[in-house]
Amino acid sequence: MYEDIVKEVYNIVYPRRKLFTAGPVACFPEVLEIMKVQMFSHRAEEYKIIHRDTIKRLKSFLEAEKGIVLLFPSSGSGIMEASIRNAVSPGGKVLVTIIGAFGERYADVVRENGRKAIELSFELGKAVDPDVLDKALKENPDVEAVAITYNETSTGVINPLPELAKIVKDHDKLLFVDAVSAMGGADIKFDEWGIDVVFGSSQKAFGVPPGLAIGAFSERVFELAEKTPEKGWYFNLPLYRKFDEEKDGTPSTPPMPQIFGLNVALRMIERMGGKEKWLNMYQKRAKMIRDGVRDIGLKLLAEPGYESPTITAVFAPEGVKGLDVYNAMRDRGFELAKGYGKIKEKTFRIGHMGYITFEDIKEMLENLRKVVSELLKGS
Amino acid sequence: MYEDIVKEVYNIVYPRRKLFTAGPVACFPEVLEIMKVQMFSHRAEEYKIIHRDTIKRLKSFLEAEKGIVLLFPSSGSGIMEASIRNAVSPGGKVLVTIIGAFGERYADVVRENGRKAIELSFELGKAVDPDVLDKALKENPDVEAVAITYNETSTGVINPLPELAKIVKDHDKLLFVDAVSAMGGADIKFDEWGIDVVFGSSQKAFGVPPGLAIGAFSERVFELAEKTPEKGWYFNLPLYRKFDEEKDGTPSTPPMPQIFGLNVALRMIERMGGKEKWLNMYQKRAKMIRDGVRDIGLKLLAEPGYESPTITAVFAPEGVKGLDVYNAMRDRGFELAKGYGKIKEKTFRIGHMGYITFEDIKEMLENLRKVVSELLKGS
Repeated sequence: MYEDIVKEVYNIVYPRRKLFTAGPVACFPEVLEIMKVQMFSHRAEEYKIIHRDTIKRLKSFLEAEKGIVLLFPSSGSGIMEASIRNAVSPGGKVLVTIIGAFGERYADVVRENGRKAIELSFELGKAVDPDVLDKALKENPDVEAVAITYNETSTGVINPLPELAKIVKDHDKLLFVDAVSAMGGADIKFDEWGIDVVFGSSQKAFGVPPGLAIGAFSERVFELAEKTPEKGWYFNLPLYRKFDEEKDGTPSTPPMPQIFGLNVALRMIERMGGKEKWLNMYQKRAKMIRDGVRDIGLKLLAEPGYESPTITAVFAPEGVKGLDVYNAMRDRGFELAKGYGKIKEKTFRIGHMGYITFEDIKEMLENLRKVVSELLKGS
Repeated sequence: MYEDIVKEVYNIVYPRRKLFTAGPVACFPEVLEIMKVQMFSHRAEEYKIIHRDTIKRLKSFLEAEKGIVLLFPSSGSGIMEASIRNAVSPGGKVLVTIIGAFGERYADVVRENGRKAIELSFELGKAVDPDVLDKALKENPDVEAVAITYNETSTGVINPLPELAKIVKDHDKLLFVDAVSAMGGADIKFDEWGIDVVFGSSQKAFGVPPGLAIGAFSERVFELAEKTPEKGWYFNLPLYRKFDEEKDGTPSTPPMPQIFGLNVALRMIERMGGKEKWLNMYQKRAKMIRDGVRDIGLKLLAEPGYESPTITAVFAPEGVKGLDVYNAMRDRGFELAKGYGKIKEKTFRIGHMGYITFEDIKEMLENLRKVVSELLKGS
C-alpha cells in the first residue's frame, strides 16, 4: 500500500483551520467515517436499501408526503436546470426574484435554456417584498413559474417563503425554490406551502461532502414534463422518477459515498430529537454569531427580521476590505467565507453550517474582535 | 459521536463479497483512505492546487496536450449530453454507432436534446466494422458528428478506435467517444487520434468511487459551442472552461472527495511505472479471465480480437440463465455483474476493473468452475 501517496495528497488538502465556510462546510465525523466504505454496484440490493431509506427520511424531513423526492448525481444547480427544462414550455416566461448572486444564476439558467427571465430584483441585503411580488405577478400574468432563492448565500438573507409561496399559489403559478443553503438549516414544508420544485445539496446544512443534489417535485411538474419537448436525458425528471420507483436508483450512477453520508446525517438528526430540535440548533448558532458580530461593532448586510439561519454576511469596518478580514482570520486559524458577487469587496461572510460547536463559535468571535481591532488600527 | 449510527449504515452497505462488478468497482485502499478527509471551500487555495494537479495528470494520461480537460460534478452520461448540446446544431444529425446498451443511450441522448440520431447498429458481441462506418458516412454526408462507444460495458467489446477515428476524420466529422468503461483501462491518445470529445467516470478503471465525470474536448468543440444556442447552464462547456482557467475550479461545487481520490489513483499509476505498465496490468487481468472462462468451457460474447480489457461478457451454459450464475457466485462470495440490456437473460459479466488482485481472479475462476458444474448437473 502506497501510504505515502495518501499522505502527500492529504498534506495538500487537509483543512488547517476551523471552518465557517459557505459550503462545502465541515462535515460531521460520523459522515466522514462512512465516506470511506468500499464501493459496489449501484444496482445491488445493498444500494437499493439505503437509497429507499434515504428518500423516506428526506420525504419526512421536507414534509413532502405528496411530493416526489429524487436524488441527483450533480450539484444543486443541476436541479435548477431540471426545473426549467422539464416544467417550463420552450420560450416560456419565468419570474425570477433576485436578492443576490444565486437569484442571478437562476435567471442565467432560465435564459441559457431558451426561456425568458423576467427579473424582479431587490436591493442587496433585502428579502423579496411580498407586495412587490404580488404586483409583479399582476403585471405579468403570462409567467409560468416564479423562482425564489429561499436563503441567499451571497447576502445572508432568508426570504419569507411561506408568505411568498401563498402569493405565487394565489396567482396559480409554479413555485420553484432554490434551497441550496437552506435545506437542512431552515424549515421546508413542501406539501403545506404548495411548492412545485425545491432543491438542496449535500454540502451545506446537512454537513455532508459535495457531489449530491436533492430535489422534491410536485405531480404537476411531471404532468408538464410529459408535454415538454427536448427535456434532455441527464435531467429528465420522468426518467429519474421511473428509475427511482422501479429500481430504487438513478438513471446513471449516483455518488454513493455522499448518499451514505446523507443517510448517516439524517439518522443523526433523528437521534438528536428530530427536525425541530435540529433547526433550533441552527437558530441558536445564528443568533450567537449575529449577537457576537454586533457586539464587536460590525453591521450585518441582512435587513432585520430576514437574517439567515445558515450564513451571516457582515460589512467590514469602514476603510477595511472584506478580504482583509477573511485573510487575517485565516492567519488565526479560522476559515470564514469571502464576500460574493457585487458586494465582494465590502463584506465577508460567516457560515454556520455543518460540524461547528458553540465553543468554536465563541473562539471565532474572540478572534474576530481582535482582527477588527488590529485592522482598524492599521487603516 | 454516534458511532453506532455509522455502524448501522456500514452494516447495510459494506460489500460482503469480492468485487468483479461493471462499476462502481472496488476502489484501491489508498483512494478510500483519502475519501474521508474533512471538507472545505472549493474556492480555497488548497482545492485549487489539487484541481490543477489532477487536470495536469489527466492531460498526460490521455495524451491530450492540445485538448481541454475538464472535471464535472456528474456521471459520465452528463458529458454525453454536453457533447450534443454544445457541439451539434439544433436539429442536426449525429451518426450513432451502436454495439450495445450504451450506444443506445447515446442515441437517446441525441434525440432527447432535439437532434437527429442516425443509428448504425451491429450484432451484439461485434465491434463497429470500419468499412460499414465508412459507407454510412458516404451515405450520410450531412451528419455533424459520429458517436462511438469505445468499450461497450454491456457486451464486453472494445472498438478499434484508432481505425474508426481515422475514418471519421477522413470525412471531417466530429468524433465523440464514450470511454466510460475504457478510460483508465484502455489507451486513449486524444491528440493523435483527432478526438473531439471523450469522457469517462471515476468509478470504472481508475478504481475511484462514483460521482465524478472526466472530459477532454478539442478547440473545435469550443468554436462550435460559441455558436450553439440553448446550451443550458449546467453542461455549458465554455463556462466550465472559463472556471477551470480562471478559478482552477468548476462553475458549481465539484465532488471534492472523488477528485482527491482520482488524484491519489493517478499518483499511484505514476508510481507503478506509468500508463503503459498500468494498461498492461489490465491486459493481463483480462487475458487471465478470458483464458479461465474458456477453460471452463464457456463462450465469450465478444468476437475474437475485440475483447474488452475491462469487462468480459460470458454466455451462461446451455439451459442455464445468466442470473443463476450471478446468484450462485454471490452465494460463494463473489459479486460479478448481471447481463445487461437485450442479452440480460443469456449472459453474465465479469468486471476486471479497480482493486482486484491476480490471486482474487484465480479464486474467482475456481469458484466459477464449480458453479457451472453444479448448475449443469441441476439443469
